[in-house]
Amino acid sequence: MKKFAVVLSGCGVYDGAEIHEAVLTLLAIDRAGASYQCFAPEMLQHHVINHLDGTEMAEKRDVLVESARIARGNIKPLSAFVASDYDALLFPGGFGAAKHLCNWAFEGDDCQVNADVEKAVLAMNNAGKPIGAMCIAPVILAKLFRGASLTTGHDPASGGFIENCGNKSVSATHGEVIYDAEKKIFTTPCYMLDASISQIAAGTENIVQMMIRG
Amino acid sequence: MKKFAVVLSGCGVYDGAEIHEAVLTLLAIDRAGASYQCFAPEMLQHHVINHLDGTEMAEKRDVLVESARIARGNIKPLSAFVASDYDALLFPGGFGAAKHLCNWAFEGDDCQVNADVEKAVLAMNNAGKPIGAMCIAPVILAKLFRGASLTTGHDPASGGFIENCGNKSVSATHGEVIYDAEKKIFTTPCYMLDASISQIAAGTENIVQMMIRG
Repeated sequence: MKKFAVVLSGCGVYDGAEIHEAVLTLLAIDRAGASYQCFAPEMLQHHVINHLDGTEMAEKRDVLVESARIARGNIKPLSAFVASDYDALLFPGGFGAAKHLCNWAFEGDDCQVNADVEKAVLAMNNAGKPIGAMCIAPVILAKLFRGASLTTGHDPASGGFIENCGNKSVSATHGEVIYDAEKKIFTTPCYMLDASISQIAAGTENIVQMMIRG
Repeated sequence: MKKFAVVLSGCGVYDGAEIHEAVLTLLAIDRAGASYQCFAPEMLQHHVINHLDGTEMAEKRDVLVESARIARGNIKPLSAFVASDYDALLFPGGFGAAKHLCNWAFEGDDCQVNADVEKAVLAMNNAGKPIGAMCIAPVILAKLFRGASLTTGHDPASGGFIENCGNKSVSATHGEVIYDAEKKIFTTPCYMLDASISQIAAGTENIVQMMIRG
């Protein structure tokens, strides 16, 4: 049975992991006969967004604690990730991927990747294991690799960043997975496109099945 | 196209709507060719639970605002629900259903149902439209009806409550839907059983498809 590590970044599209993408990723892994373990970094969220009106709230929340909502408590700190325990590493999207797993949302080209995220990605890549990223999460991989083919749908800002980092930004539509065979990197746009929840499920199913086939 | 109203109760199994059940309900509705609108009551959560360790946190959160995370902002206050606009009413589970939509988790047999929830349920029932509830959410319907067949899996506490209210508690397993034909009430156990996320998806798909058939 293939074992996936799924890295969450909070709980909610505007300040954390995109909930539909995260849940449908777990469903796709389970339905494909593989298993999953969720991880998230232990850190304060950059901010808390009211998802009803988009305003910033005067609150402090922790990325790991909020991610635990999606994982029903079955989650580990990303600092405890060991690459040899897993066959694949997968990042659902949501702005948390661009605010916590890296800070591209605030720093753009000058962004930095969270140290535990970088360690996990490089360890899996060094071991020749597949890495996947959805929605805006490919910006993490753009910062860590050169010459990789990545997609964030048709988004000019993140696509430009991917190119500025020395990678190739590939346009993709609903459910489509861009596969970089040399680096074993899989990306799919999900909610970077205006999408229905069924279209998100198609993306998560396709990326998980392609990662299992390797 | 059938229109579902989906009532959320926060965001997270221990103090809100169960996230997998909620997301997979939306997916099942969309995949069945129907549409959905999410609702939640405007009220403070009874408490906030840290989903990593189960402890209570010194925070205040609003049920509608947190539910908006699952709905990606596309959610309305339950006070704005109009029965004539919808073909079906559906309650995912999670402890929020038993803490906010009613207070069975704290008051047991003496519990009360949130006034907007009661109004929505009775209006749909009076119009002869189907009502569904998952996981622990059938306790809401137990308080509002007499002589209904309802399931919460094999759980003795909520099953006893269903019986004490003058209804019939029916045992059910993964993906199974209990249908009360006279009242057009559909219930399925979801995470009231020890379940995989694929088993939850089977439950949400079955209940949505049965509700569409009527």
